[in-house]
Amino acid sequence: MTKKDVAGETPPPRAKRLPRAVRERQILDAAVRVFSERGYHAASMDEVSDVAGISKPMIYAYLGSKEELFAACIQREATRLMESIGGVVDVELDPEEQLWRGVLAFFTFVGENRDSWQVLHRQAGSQGAPFAAELAEGRRRAVAMISALLDRAASREGVGAFAEGRTEPLAAALTGAGEALAEWWLEHPEETPKAMARRLMNLSWMGFGNLVLGRAWHPDKTA
Amino acid sequence: MTKKDVAGETPPPRAKRLPRAVRERQILDAAVRVFSERGYHAASMDEVSDVAGISKPMIYAYLGSKEELFAACIQREATRLMESIGGVVDVELDPEEQLWRGVLAFFTFVGENRDSWQVLHRQAGSQGAPFAAELAEGRRRAVAMISALLDRAASREGVGAFAEGRTEPLAAALTGAGEALAEWWLEHPEETPKAMARRLMNLSWMGFGNLVLGRAWHPDKTA
Repeated sequence: MTKKDVAGETPPPRAKRLPRAVRERQILDAAVRVFSERGYHAASMDEVSDVAGISKPMIYAYLGSKEELFAACIQREATRLMESIGGVVDVELDPEEQLWRGVLAFFTFVGENRDSWQVLHRQAGSQGAPFAAELAEGRRRAVAMISALLDRAASREGVGAFAEGRTEPLAAALTGAGEALAEWWLEHPEETPKAMARRLMNLSWMGFGNLVLGRAWHPDKTA
Repeated sequence: MTKKDVAGETPPPRAKRLPRAVRERQILDAAVRVFSERGYHAASMDEVSDVAGISKPMIYAYLGSKEELFAACIQREATRLMESIGGVVDVELDPEEQLWRGVLAFFTFVGENRDSWQVLHRQAGSQGAPFAAELAEGRRRAVAMISALLDRAASREGVGAFAEGRTEPLAAALTGAGEALAEWWLEHPEETPKAMARRLMNLSWMGFGNLVLGRAWHPDKTA
C-alpha cells in the first residue's frame, strides 16, 4: 500500500518501478536505433531519452556518458550476434552442416537486426580508438569460434590440421569475408539471408576452383 | 635570374628548386610514415615537416590542411597498391595463376609497405566520415578488378557466370578476406608474404571442403 492509494492521488510506485535490467534494455534498444540512424557523432542523448521514454538523468545513472552508452551497445549487440550463431552450431553435426548453419544464422541476424549491424560494423568501425577495442574483441570471439569449428572438422577427417598448420588465420579471413558480404548486402537489400549465406559457402566451402567449373554449393548438399 | 644571383651571394636557384612533383612525393612519403606511426589524431604537421625536410608553409601550399594531406596519402597508397596488383595480373593467363599472382602481389605490397597499409586500413578505416569515402573508393576498385577476373575465368570455362549470377559479391568477400588476413599478419610479422598468399588461395580457390580433406593449395599447381 502506498501514500497514493491512501490519498487516492497518485498511482502506486510499484507499477512505475521497472526492474533495472528492463530499463537498461529499453535504453539500449533506443540507443542502438538512434546511433544506427544518426551515426555516433550526430546522435544525441536527448533523442535516446525521447525514444526510450526514460529521462536523461536516469540514462546517465544507469549506463553513463554517451561514449559509455555506445560501448555498451557494441558489447550487447556483439553478444546477441554471437549467441544467435552459437545457438545453431552443434558440435555433433557434420562440419559442413555446422558451417552452413553458422553462416546462415549470421546473415539471418544481420537481416533481422540491421540497426545492430550498422552500430556494430559501420559506426563502431569508424569511430576510432575508444571503440576499436570493443569491435576487435567481438571479432576475436568470432574467429575463435570458427577456428574451433575448423579444428574439429580437420581432426574428424583425420588430417590433423590445415595446410600451414593453423586454422586461426583462415577463420579471420572467413570473418572478414562475412563482414564484407554483409556490407555489400546493405547496398543490395533485395537479397535474401539464404542467398547471402550461399555466397559465403560458395567462397569458403567450395572455393573458386570449383565455382569456375560451375560447381556451386547448395544447402541440400548437407544432411 | 634572381637579385641574389646578380649579387653572386647564393647558389643558383635551379639547384634549390625541385620540381613540384618531387616535393609532393617527399611530403607524402613523410606523411605516410608519420600518420602510420602516430595515428591520424596525434600526427602533427610539424613532424611531417621535420621528416620531409620541407617547411610547413610549403606543405600547406602544396597539399593543404592535415585532413587534405591525409586524404592525399590514402589516394596515393591505394593507387600504388592497385598498380602493384594490376601489374602482375595478365588476362591471357590461366585464372588460377592470375588470382595467385594478384594475391601474392597484394601480400608482397603489404609486407614491403607496412606504413602504407597502416595508413590505408587502420588509420583511414578508423577516422570516420571524411576518409570513409576514400577508403570505399579504393575497395570499389579492388572489387571491380577481382570481379572482372572471376568473370573472365567463368566465361573461359564456359559456365557463363557463377552461382547466383554475380561475381561482385564474391569479389567483395575475397577483398574482405584479404583485408582481414593482412590485419592478422600485423600481429604475426614472422609470416612470409608467400605463406599469407597461400592462405588466401586455400580459402578462396580450394575452399574448406577441400581443406578438411587435407587437400591444400600449392603454388606449383599453377603453370
